[in-house]
Amino acid sequence: MSVARDAGLQEGVLRIVPLGGIGEIGKNMTVIEYGDDIVVVDAGLMFPEEEMFGIDLVVPDVTYLRQRRHKVRAFLITHAHEDHVGGLPYVLPEFPGVPVYASTLARGLLGNKIKEHKLHDNPLIALEPRQSVQLGPFTATPFRIGHSIPDAMGLALRTPLGLIVHTGDFKFDHTPVDGKLSDFHELARYGAEGVLCLLSDSTRAESPGYTPSERTVGEAFRDIMAGLDGRVIVATFASNIARIQQVFDAAGDFRRRVTVIGRSMEQNTRIAVDLGYLRYPAGQLVSKDRIRDVPDGELVIATTGAQGEPMAGLARMANRDHRFVEIQPGDTVIVSASPIPGNEEMVGRTIDNLFKAGANVFYHTIKRAHVSGHASQEELKLMLNLTRPRYFIPIHGEFRMLVQHGRLAAEVGVEPGNIFIIENGQSIEFLPDGSARRGQRVEAGYVFVDGLSVGEVGDVVLRDRRELAHDGMFLIVVTVDKQTGNLVGRPEIVTRGFVAEVDQRLLDGAMDRIARSIENPGDHISEIGLLKAQIKDGLSQYLYERTKRRPMVFPVVVEV
Amino acid sequence: MSVARDAGLQEGVLRIVPLGGIGEIGKNMTVIEYGDDIVVVDAGLMFPEEEMFGIDLVVPDVTYLRQRRHKVRAFLITHAHEDHVGGLPYVLPEFPGVPVYASTLARGLLGNKIKEHKLHDNPLIALEPRQSVQLGPFTATPFRIGHSIPDAMGLALRTPLGLIVHTGDFKFDHTPVDGKLSDFHELARYGAEGVLCLLSDSTRAESPGYTPSERTVGEAFRDIMAGLDGRVIVATFASNIARIQQVFDAAGDFRRRVTVIGRSMEQNTRIAVDLGYLRYPAGQLVSKDRIRDVPDGELVIATTGAQGEPMAGLARMANRDHRFVEIQPGDTVIVSASPIPGNEEMVGRTIDNLFKAGANVFYHTIKRAHVSGHASQEELKLMLNLTRPRYFIPIHGEFRMLVQHGRLAAEVGVEPGNIFIIENGQSIEFLPDGSARRGQRVEAGYVFVDGLSVGEVGDVVLRDRRELAHDGMFLIVVTVDKQTGNLVGRPEIVTRGFVAEVDQRLLDGAMDRIARSIENPGDHISEIGLLKAQIKDGLSQYLYERTKRRPMVFPVVVEV
Repeated sequence: MSVARDAGLQEGVLRIVPLGGIGEIGKNMTVIEYGDDIVVVDAGLMFPEEEMFGIDLVVPDVTYLRQRRHKVRAFLITHAHEDHVGGLPYVLPEFPGVPVYASTLARGLLGNKIKEHKLHDNPLIALEPRQSVQLGPFTATPFRIGHSIPDAMGLALRTPLGLIVHTGDFKFDHTPVDGKLSDFHELARYGAEGVLCLLSDSTRAESPGYTPSERTVGEAFRDIMAGLDGRVIVATFASNIARIQQVFDAAGDFRRRVTVIGRSMEQNTRIAVDLGYLRYPAGQLVSKDRIRDVPDGELVIATTGAQGEPMAGLARMANRDHRFVEIQPGDTVIVSASPIPGNEEMVGRTIDNLFKAGANVFYHTIKRAHVSGHASQEELKLMLNLTRPRYFIPIHGEFRMLVQHGRLAAEVGVEPGNIFIIENGQSIEFLPDGSARRGQRVEAGYVFVDGLSVGEVGDVVLRDRRELAHDGMFLIVVTVDKQTGNLVGRPEIVTRGFVAEVDQRLLDGAMDRIARSIENPGDHISEIGLLKAQIKDGLSQYLYERTKRRPMVFPVVVEV
Repeated sequence: MSVARDAGLQEGVLRIVPLGGIGEIGKNMTVIEYGDDIVVVDAGLMFPEEEMFGIDLVVPDVTYLRQRRHKVRAFLITHAHEDHVGGLPYVLPEFPGVPVYASTLARGLLGNKIKEHKLHDNPLIALEPRQSVQLGPFTATPFRIGHSIPDAMGLALRTPLGLIVHTGDFKFDHTPVDGKLSDFHELARYGAEGVLCLLSDSTRAESPGYTPSERTVGEAFRDIMAGLDGRVIVATFASNIARIQQVFDAAGDFRRRVTVIGRSMEQNTRIAVDLGYLRYPAGQLVSKDRIRDVPDGELVIATTGAQGEPMAGLARMANRDHRFVEIQPGDTVIVSASPIPGNEEMVGRTIDNLFKAGANVFYHTIKRAHVSGHASQEELKLMLNLTRPRYFIPIHGEFRMLVQHGRLAAEVGVEPGNIFIIENGQSIEFLPDGSARRGQRVEAGYVFVDGLSVGEVGDVVLRDRRELAHDGMFLIVVTVDKQTGNLVGRPEIVTRGFVAEVDQRLLDGAMDRIARSIENPGDHISEIGLLKAQIKDGLSQYLYERTKRRPMVFPVVVEV
């Protein structure tokens, strides 16, 4: 990758640099820079992809920010989903004192993170929709927007060169569960004022039409619950407070009580209740250790694990591995989610196990008890037509989604030359004369969180894990006499993940090959490095010939 | 698993044992047994799942057949897809002389497999739809059925206890590309005659309605090609001859020539042409090394890799790693497939790379240029209503699909108690009095093909690979003086996949921990095994404390 020779920022130029979330789903982070000032929108994490063996989390590479530490004025949070805030614990320690701005619920949910990670050096400041804060030359004003978590906001950023609108994650829900509409009027005002650049959520740019209202999920819950006399278990995302509200509402209509099970969901529910984002009649919530007192026909269990996560509530209940709930015949399970790409197999397996345990299961292909939190094509066009931006950068999505979103923008009249389909790290610069161009490309890859370390595990370690995973390892310890160069005793072999039992002939052949490596040392006998290389090459080749497998071969030579 | 204490087969009892393909997608195999005779329907393979590290293929466990080798009369092949015939090379060598029955095209496609794997001990015998063959007490008569490969057949098996109908993979296509209809009349006759048991394909039992005709794909091809002046690249399955026929037909309508690229697709195309299953005007096919002579606007390239397979045609073209074709701006790519669950990420990445290389891409979410080869719910009900079976076993599909298919059967009137939702290895026994019951459960797990070995790699090897993949390995070689028990020289450390660079403090701490293990040997100094265990435990614990990772720790003690 060609990177980070810092060209410096020319005077009067506004630079936008996506450090995450574009060309990928997750670890969202956008940098906006002018003169000596930078604001950062969101700091998310990404869950590791299949081939990132053993990695716990992926966070954005903030080399660019680190090199400009003195410029960073604020982190502005659009909403408290992990792909927008999960990187904070790994990023903030490098920016002590820099404030984090967020809305009420986001601050509530962030509170725990801050406690857990001891991030007390960064003030967490309230910023509600339509409130403004001055940050160097920028005025930041969030606007309310619909999403699968209450209090989600987009961001209007007034800069010396014009207005930047960043949607965050959004959909337009005309009948939101909490009654709080997206701020169409404010968006229209921006359009009237003139928007220099729109950055807009592309997650569902491939989906035609409109994303249905969250309220339709409540209707599906009621359809399913009508007439049931067994328990109902609803699995969904822990942060989707509106969804949990609808579980309470639907349950109430059938005189059912609700218990919430799953660490993150219990925590979020508590915070949402405290802050007034979740309401239910006194006595409807029942604690999980008292559900045995509630008749099956009067209980709804809300839990986590709708993505098939093996350690979450639903999978454990399906596998009879849960402390409070075991699936029993007569149970009805609603998986209120669609599998995120990559999770299909895990979700399928969990559903299979629920059926095997005797439950009736409603899931994405059978009964839609889920809607997306992201805007479909008609909503994306509405966003474009309300804000009428001069320049457009599709964000939040895989490359193909950015391409589709770019097409929509062109369809509604954005000048095709003013649409930037870019990848993470590609900066866009806005010039005082009103023009814009691709600027330098900066470091914006993956930083891996693995165990206690951040950034220490890199591509080499992953490549080794991949190789070890593929054909295992074959280690040989050879003892040689320092004086004569002769083999002393029998070599010792340790092998794992290669074959179940090393067959004696294979072993003899390997020994033979090694003995030959040692007997023909040429004039290199004194060089252990060369001897090792000979053993490694000879042995690798031999094992491949005999098994068509390529375990990692490690020769160790002990001189005595 | 409780298995294979063979209860023996009672006289007059008919037994059906699925050894693969139910509760999973792939490695289809059904055993039908009566008295001293067995016929086997299909012998497929399965591609490894995500957590089967390094495994090349999965084939059925045929322990049950091996124990009854003398009974096996025939393998009956429904069609030549890998999940129905790919296991033959690994299974047939155990059953020399047992004939394989298949239709014309299946025999053509199997020919190569037989040559490659030298399976000349098993006669490959023609069996066309409506022809019958007597196999001990069984009369087998295949019937024509629609699917995503020509010449697909289901199987009517007349047994002493009644008629068994096995659908194979199927859909009802009223306008098939080759004009050969599913044999509705024969199926209706079975229904009139009386069907003891139906085994039917459940792959799409979750999909409401009808699966569209293959012919609709040709229409989509034409819609896309109309008015294009660049190259068109169509990626699809190598065995879908009807799809390839439609590429030729649509290309012909726009005066385009066609080249076929990809080893398996080239091979299949050649066989299909030879046998008369693929037709095009003389001169329309152009060899891949001559495509530079054809103007872009007059060329269609048919290729493999529609599932995003990194080594297949499409991914290599996207990555500029293909000998004959590099994607260039102006190219139009049609991905004529839907991602098989588990492949979504790979497919997505390939599409992203095609866009990045400048192509316009039509894929499953944008323009449906693909239809399934499997029956949706209305077709499944039609199959049930035509055959009117007394007993029903849904096959070919994940457990949840079997459950849905079972519900459809109950809806159309099959007695709920006569519907068997079972897993691989669960036998069903039919008694002379017309009743049926669950019989013994037999071995029917996975046999892994890994490199040259079949069945040698088992769960232990996979568990080791998984552990190695997760946190890597940490090997320590300690030399001790045989007499004194003292450490000689410095221990040697080899580590891979654990941390990028072993930090000196970590190393010192590890050494310290090891030294302590050795200094406090108690009275076990002479026991190397115990010493190793001490080193391993101490070191594992130390590394976990310091890094929160658990590499596999291998202690080697060399005595001198």
